[in-house]
Amino acid sequence: VIVTVTLNAALDVTYVTPGGVRPGTTHRIRSVAQRAGGKGVNTARVLASLGEPVLALGLAGGASGAELRAELDAAGVPHGFTPIAGTTRRTVAVVDASGTDGVTGFWEPGPQVTGEEWQGFRADFRVAVRDARAVVLAGSLPPGVPGDAYADLVGMASGAGVPSLVDADGDALRAALSARPALVKPNAEEALRALGEGPANGPHHDGASVHQVPATGEHGCPADGPRASGRGSSPLPLSLARRLVAGGAGSAVVSAGARGLVACWGGRLLAVAPPRVISGNATGAGDAASAALAVALARGLPPEEALSRAVALSAAAVAAPLAGDVDGDVLAELEPLVAVRDLT
Amino acid sequence: VIVTVTLNAALDVTYVTPGGVRPGTTHRIRSVAQRAGGKGVNTARVLASLGEPVLALGLAGGASGAELRAELDAAGVPHGFTPIAGTTRRTVAVVDASGTDGVTGFWEPGPQVTGEEWQGFRADFRVAVRDARAVVLAGSLPPGVPGDAYADLVGMASGAGVPSLVDADGDALRAALSARPALVKPNAEEALRALGEGPANGPHHDGASVHQVPATGEHGCPADGPRASGRGSSPLPLSLARRLVAGGAGSAVVSAGARGLVACWGGRLLAVAPPRVISGNATGAGDAASAALAVALARGLPPEEALSRAVALSAAAVAAPLAGDVDGDVLAELEPLVAVRDLT
Repeated sequence: VIVTVTLNAALDVTYVTPGGVRPGTTHRIRSVAQRAGGKGVNTARVLASLGEPVLALGLAGGASGAELRAELDAAGVPHGFTPIAGTTRRTVAVVDASGTDGVTGFWEPGPQVTGEEWQGFRADFRVAVRDARAVVLAGSLPPGVPGDAYADLVGMASGAGVPSLVDADGDALRAALSARPALVKPNAEEALRALGEGPANGPHHDGASVHQVPATGEHGCPADGPRASGRGSSPLPLSLARRLVAGGAGSAVVSAGARGLVACWGGRLLAVAPPRVISGNATGAGDAASAALAVALARGLPPEEALSRAVALSAAAVAAPLAGDVDGDVLAELEPLVAVRDLT
Repeated sequence: VIVTVTLNAALDVTYVTPGGVRPGTTHRIRSVAQRAGGKGVNTARVLASLGEPVLALGLAGGASGAELRAELDAAGVPHGFTPIAGTTRRTVAVVDASGTDGVTGFWEPGPQVTGEEWQGFRADFRVAVRDARAVVLAGSLPPGVPGDAYADLVGMASGAGVPSLVDADGDALRAALSARPALVKPNAEEALRALGEGPANGPHHDGASVHQVPATGEHGCPADGPRASGRGSSPLPLSLARRLVAGGAGSAVVSAGARGLVACWGGRLLAVAPPRVISGNATGAGDAASAALAVALARGLPPEEALSRAVALSAAAVAAPLAGDVDGDVLAELEPLVAVRDLT
């Protein structure tokens, strides 16, 4: 089974309005939809839809936590969220049916988590990881969860011989690197922040942590050569992937939006782009990629297979309207066409 | 006991953002608050805070219905909502803490109500009205509830000798008039729509219903004389109040926002304005006025006392930040200062 962890899970609510959002006015919503969300939950949903054994863990509480669990039951996604006294956050996405404004989002803050609740989660995770073939640790940390939570969980998984994939931002990702996760999968902005070079995480960020990342790692990739700046590749994500591995990750996959993925994996620099541009809802595309990468970790697949499957699943997720869903036709069409380029 | 009816009750959610709403972007919410809402619920909350025996009825279902009940329990507002399979709507109000955008609202549609559920409510109402001294029927009707619901309930109350106050819009108010409620309390726009003269209720509205309103009523008020166009009064609301009584209401109170209330009551035209302008949150101000008017109906108070209390409570509600709350200091200050003018 693949275990996903979503510590700051959400109930994702979608409102459709006939027209755009006009600040300072009242909008009558035409339709309301809600489903369980958060990066790890989206990944679990994709895995379940692929028939892959999965268990979605995390923290959930309050009325919205109960709705989250009920929706996962209805969707057939096995789950075992640890209860908390706080209320699972909602995200409200207001979709303009006329297409003018796109999506206007309102994200509630995560619930406050007590030390006891965090220990309760750790105990649940320790039990679940015994049967796991891979774990996915994804998304932000709610208030009260220690900043090194992902390092802690990666260590527990490693102790049980289970590889971890970490998909996180900034501080949470940087802290995870010290526990040497098998794979990290941020996007370029998140990787920049984790390496201490992006727009500051907080008001007092001083960028000093970049100096703590060592220059070479166990499976380090060579510095970007001439081939790395060739057609369609992006030197920056390649460099970030290389440096995340230098910083502690076994392998690193960095997503660059519609341009696809780059990776430093097994000492090689690899780049994969979708064979054609897919338009649609990019929310959840990275989580679908994580699903493919987690399967690869669980089965020990070679990086070419992992990355081409990740790009195809990601594109199939963009083609499906809701995060966590994939368009089977797009997946079947694209998967054989995705090519991996070795830029080492 | 005063029975309030809120057929389209809501869970009112307030989001505070540090800055304005920017369409097409994602906003991280700083704080979330939620409470039971809807016009009748707000009125019940004011009555409970005044120590007045009250029972809040209505329809509620789903997770948000459970949250609505729990919040009323916590607030000490006695309630007996009839369960429905659908989910109680939420209203989301995004408040810009910087003050630039004011409040941006998103109102979910009301739940679909089945015929069986509506009959269940009628049975609950029939029991509750036996012990009632007045009933307040307030707000919109959710899908599935008959358009003449308020007329039906006014008739049931009248059959038990209990006077009704109806605070509704357009079609629902117009339909209620036929059952001769003791008091109606729309604002000027709602009264215009009920009389078939306002901006159309729907795309096929033809304004014909204005001809169905008879020219005189049992307690009819004289046509607006020279005094009715004097200082501070507004000829339009006076005319609307008069015509609502001509249409079937025992008395009519029409609110004109910060300018106060006008009434056709016991054959007299009356106007009441607050002694000073109160700034704050106007949401719920009309529901506070309804609370005062319901007390007057229950006790048979003279119109001057009812109206001056209604204006003072309404101003005290504007001064309190949340709908359904009143500022006790403002109430104590204003109540002795409110003067009722007879414009007959």
